[in-house]
Amino acid sequence: MHGNDATSLITAMAARARAASATLAAMPSDTKRAALRAGAAEIRAAADAILAANARDMAAGEAHGLTPALLDRLRLDTGRVEAMAAGIEAVAALDDPVGDTINEVRRPNGLVLRRVRIPIGVIGIIYESRPNVTADAGVLCAMSGNAAILRGGSEAIHSNRAIHAALAKGLAAGGMPADAVQLVPTTDRAAVGAMLKAEGAIDMIVPRGGKSLVARVQQEARVPVLAHLDGLCHTYVHSAADPEMAQSLALNAKMRRTGICGATETLLIDTGFADPKPILAALADAGCELRGDAGVQALDARVRPAAPEDWDTEYLDAILSVKLVDGLDAAMEHIARHGSHHTDAIITEDATAAERFLNTVDSAIVMWNASTQFADGGEFGLGAEIGISTGRLHARGPVALEGLTTYKWVVRGTGQARP
Amino acid sequence: MHGNDATSLITAMAARARAASATLAAMPSDTKRAALRAGAAEIRAAADAILAANARDMAAGEAHGLTPALLDRLRLDTGRVEAMAAGIEAVAALDDPVGDTINEVRRPNGLVLRRVRIPIGVIGIIYESRPNVTADAGVLCAMSGNAAILRGGSEAIHSNRAIHAALAKGLAAGGMPADAVQLVPTTDRAAVGAMLKAEGAIDMIVPRGGKSLVARVQQEARVPVLAHLDGLCHTYVHSAADPEMAQSLALNAKMRRTGICGATETLLIDTGFADPKPILAALADAGCELRGDAGVQALDARVRPAAPEDWDTEYLDAILSVKLVDGLDAAMEHIARHGSHHTDAIITEDATAAERFLNTVDSAIVMWNASTQFADGGEFGLGAEIGISTGRLHARGPVALEGLTTYKWVVRGTGQARP
Repeated sequence: MHGNDATSLITAMAARARAASATLAAMPSDTKRAALRAGAAEIRAAADAILAANARDMAAGEAHGLTPALLDRLRLDTGRVEAMAAGIEAVAALDDPVGDTINEVRRPNGLVLRRVRIPIGVIGIIYESRPNVTADAGVLCAMSGNAAILRGGSEAIHSNRAIHAALAKGLAAGGMPADAVQLVPTTDRAAVGAMLKAEGAIDMIVPRGGKSLVARVQQEARVPVLAHLDGLCHTYVHSAADPEMAQSLALNAKMRRTGICGATETLLIDTGFADPKPILAALADAGCELRGDAGVQALDARVRPAAPEDWDTEYLDAILSVKLVDGLDAAMEHIARHGSHHTDAIITEDATAAERFLNTVDSAIVMWNASTQFADGGEFGLGAEIGISTGRLHARGPVALEGLTTYKWVVRGTGQARP
Repeated sequence: MHGNDATSLITAMAARARAASATLAAMPSDTKRAALRAGAAEIRAAADAILAANARDMAAGEAHGLTPALLDRLRLDTGRVEAMAAGIEAVAALDDPVGDTINEVRRPNGLVLRRVRIPIGVIGIIYESRPNVTADAGVLCAMSGNAAILRGGSEAIHSNRAIHAALAKGLAAGGMPADAVQLVPTTDRAAVGAMLKAEGAIDMIVPRGGKSLVARVQQEARVPVLAHLDGLCHTYVHSAADPEMAQSLALNAKMRRTGICGATETLLIDTGFADPKPILAALADAGCELRGDAGVQALDARVRPAAPEDWDTEYLDAILSVKLVDGLDAAMEHIARHGSHHTDAIITEDATAAERFLNTVDSAIVMWNASTQFADGGEFGLGAEIGISTGRLHARGPVALEGLTTYKWVVRGTGQARP
């Protein structure tokens, strides 16, 4: 596909999406909920077709030598299809932010101003091998009144087409426009470039995938990007930490699941903390490779020396860098220099130290006495998430329906002219 | 100045701004207010020096043949210096959004999540000939806890330096970091390019100026931009409009001040509206050039034929394009095709038609029975504005302190690990 063809394709899809978005923006919440539930029912009804399509993708993936991790992301089974359908129903049950009044002002001249939440418009989602994103991201956009243009990974194309066909059928049966959720039909990478440059036609791009995808999107995009870059999260064991809590949280923050963005990658232990050895032992016993500075190495023979780049590495694996720090300020300085503004936690019984940490550390999520693994839209009560934003504008941290809206000012007068 | 030198300069300024922003973010509201008031006092005390510097800029501007309009924007006098100082005091009196809790959630597991407003960080302002922006934009950033990097037009460099010197002296005396508000010392355009590419070092760029400046910024920027592009505003006189109100609002919306972004550029008159002639007569009598379609030309001999590009032109002058439209849908369709998503108004006594207009028209500001000239942060009760955003993300319409903030998620636990 030539770049021009890709541009024509995306331009045409975006124009249809824009038309659909006007209808979606005006749909009552209950109609949107019903359409989503119809989509979930169609996904369930099409489970066999979806699994057959997925088998084609899996066979091709194996033939092309995809890694086991990628194959696992690609794989669907009955349980995962059911989880997809249930996920759609969960989104259908969320509060609908569209139409909410953010604030209202009555001016001395009698004008009444209201800031009202509205959908953003047309949202592009660019993602990799997980086919469930087709359903998850599509319905988050639709429920918030946005039209979606989905561009999944080429390795999942058959799965994505089957999921999209079922979802679109259900949404349309439920009364949504046929173009509410569109799937880019080609796997050509030129289509990604065309989406990134569709300024004014696509209002926001959400990349969902690894660092190289997100970096490409941020580098090339002329459309605003809601991006999630690294999750280089820290857990800091303060001198006044409860030892049992510190051990439990360090273990959970690192080892519950090592591949998620909220997993702790660096453990900072205060030199004033009484007994760091049991924490290190528990981690090593649980199969975690420890890389530490000289002080940490002296505490446990299983600790390997950390290289300078370890402090800047998001392992997404059972590896943890561990550093001894001299007090709260040194910990916060380390986080400021090496963190990725995602999620950082302090473990302490000292409320003053905790509040200073919460106020000072410049991350989307700051935590006191909790596992960084809670960094998740579901755990935050958002019901779902389209991603976790590490940017500073528009939306920060876990993003669900509200982050997919903007607002307009609605001004009601009785004939006021400006003096 | 070579591009590399410009990059070094901006990198160094941004690093100082980042350090200052950490201090600013933690400053209590009253300390910020006191520092702003000290800044206002220093501006008043330095009035003679500011006026002398401005005289140098004016002389150079006249020698370089600046247009009368540009010279008027550049010109300061005692009244304008006093207005600048009073404007700073007005910002010092605004509600401080920093630290506000947007919402709070208590999860079943006992975690308490709070979304808390915080400053964005480092904000770059790129502006043209109005030297008062140095003070206005600088203090809006500082009051919202952000460090500012100001880059004004070369024609105003002496005025800007004098204003900045006084302001910075006052802010520092009031306890703000010396680098809270910095002025780019060079007039070299390479500095603008370096600011636009300072991704990660500058968090947001606000361009303040004409269309060509904003277009350049949007084209080149890698840093997120809070941009105000066109103000192609419409006033639609519905069939059920009160004739007197329609005449008063059409006149005010176009002619009160023709050079502001909220000025109406196109008047849409419903074919069902009983008596359009007095409106056209009043506008023409007030000195407004009218350009209309054939139907409008038939109503008043002073109406000239409109060319197709008139419907897409932001005149910023005493010129108005006028079109007869066949009902509400035709009016909204015209606005969708030709508008700039800034401000659009309907004049009607029919509440159903009005609500449909307010819901459907996709503009930052939609109005019912009010003059589009109210599109202004001061008139909206925001106390000031750094600009009017015509983008869809982060902030829309008039932007003041709240639009210069973002938020963080603050999570307080009691040792919760994620199951």
